[in-house]
Amino acid sequence: MTQNIYDNDTFFTGYSQLPRSVGGLDAAPEWPALRAMLPDLQGKNVLDLGCGYGWFCRWAVQAGAARVLGVDVSEKMLAQARSMGNQAALGYARLDMEQLTLPPASYDLVYSSLAFHYIEDYTTLLATIRQSLKPGGKLVFSIEHPIFMAPRQPGWLTDAQGRKHWPVDSYQQQGPRISDWLAPGVIKQHRTLGTTLNALLHAGFQLEQVEEWGPTDDQIAQQPALAEERERPMLLLIGCGAP
Amino acid sequence: MTQNIYDNDTFFTGYSQLPRSVGGLDAAPEWPALRAMLPDLQGKNVLDLGCGYGWFCRWAVQAGAARVLGVDVSEKMLAQARSMGNQAALGYARLDMEQLTLPPASYDLVYSSLAFHYIEDYTTLLATIRQSLKPGGKLVFSIEHPIFMAPRQPGWLTDAQGRKHWPVDSYQQQGPRISDWLAPGVIKQHRTLGTTLNALLHAGFQLEQVEEWGPTDDQIAQQPALAEERERPMLLLIGCGAP
Repeated sequence: MTQNIYDNDTFFTGYSQLPRSVGGLDAAPEWPALRAMLPDLQGKNVLDLGCGYGWFCRWAVQAGAARVLGVDVSEKMLAQARSMGNQAALGYARLDMEQLTLPPASYDLVYSSLAFHYIEDYTTLLATIRQSLKPGGKLVFSIEHPIFMAPRQPGWLTDAQGRKHWPVDSYQQQGPRISDWLAPGVIKQHRTLGTTLNALLHAGFQLEQVEEWGPTDDQIAQQPALAEERERPMLLLIGCGAP
Repeated sequence: MTQNIYDNDTFFTGYSQLPRSVGGLDAAPEWPALRAMLPDLQGKNVLDLGCGYGWFCRWAVQAGAARVLGVDVSEKMLAQARSMGNQAALGYARLDMEQLTLPPASYDLVYSSLAFHYIEDYTTLLATIRQSLKPGGKLVFSIEHPIFMAPRQPGWLTDAQGRKHWPVDSYQQQGPRISDWLAPGVIKQHRTLGTTLNALLHAGFQLEQVEEWGPTDDQIAQQPALAEERERPMLLLIGCGAP
């Protein structure tokens, strides 16, 4: 079973104070880029893997989805999601993505935000998702970029001229990365970008879009701290089709 | 027109002493991975863009290609290529890839090794290649990895524990990178990995394989200096189809 760090009290308390937890999708700077990769949801059947507080699920209902299922391994996250609104088209289920089974040819869109990098058996997960998509369905997801995740000591370094750089090492050494983020000992899984893409292709997906998110000029004007996100890719957004 | 650095005397002299110039394909550590991405060449029509000394062209003839055309902007490179062997199936042409026109639906394979990162107008080049491929044809190419190329000051840094890292900055700032490699003022074009892949998709290619080359255990045993290539991705190998 995947580490369920979101039910750790310290982690959950920290997580609940993040801008994207309080402010939802509009507080996530990559959301405009991710939204632009989504198909029209009118009348569609949508699955959100790692739904957290359910911000995307509620948005998808507003965007016209006929049915939205949010799945998360964390009881605390789902309790919070359920407390934030009831909509007839919306349901939640507590499931571990590593143990997931899904009905065949059922979804028009499988969506996931910043969750797949916790998954050890990514190959099995992709096969499960692939068979659950209707013909013409889409998988759109984000993960931490492997350049962000690879280093033994992830953190900005500053040179003698005061300029920041991101120290990349261990890139080809795939496997767990243990970091202290909101709580000690958070386990994520580093895979190279090649591995991430080739696994999608082997699972029968067609790649449609690969975005290494970076802030726009407007975003930096409004939030100058985002400027450092131009120095190295932090997030990877992928859109693919199931022919 | 692309900078023709290969006809610079200093550059050419330096280049002519590189292991891959002297020893050919087998002296290029990424060759086994690139070769594994190639289709069967028996009876095929092959184009090599940026053919240099023609090592790949001669190999393709040996592998059974019916016709191989090697293209390069450098007169010196082509003179060297021509001096290294005449085969009936093999021809060379001096052409600038930025000004290229190609006959429609003519090639089974377009191949390019470490040349596209010199090209400013990558989008036009891809459109030119795409229309030149027969249905079912392939484009297989390598470039310097954008993580390798992005930094203002590309070069290993060593931390207090003696461990190397690669300092990534300026990743989202696409455009020229001027470096001193064999000669001063070599101009390469930095594009993010997302830009590189999305341009292929927009040109009508289907992505089939994306490899961020790293050395195998055997390669490191034979050539220990290669071990640093596990720390950060240096080369990007891409295979795609033209449906």
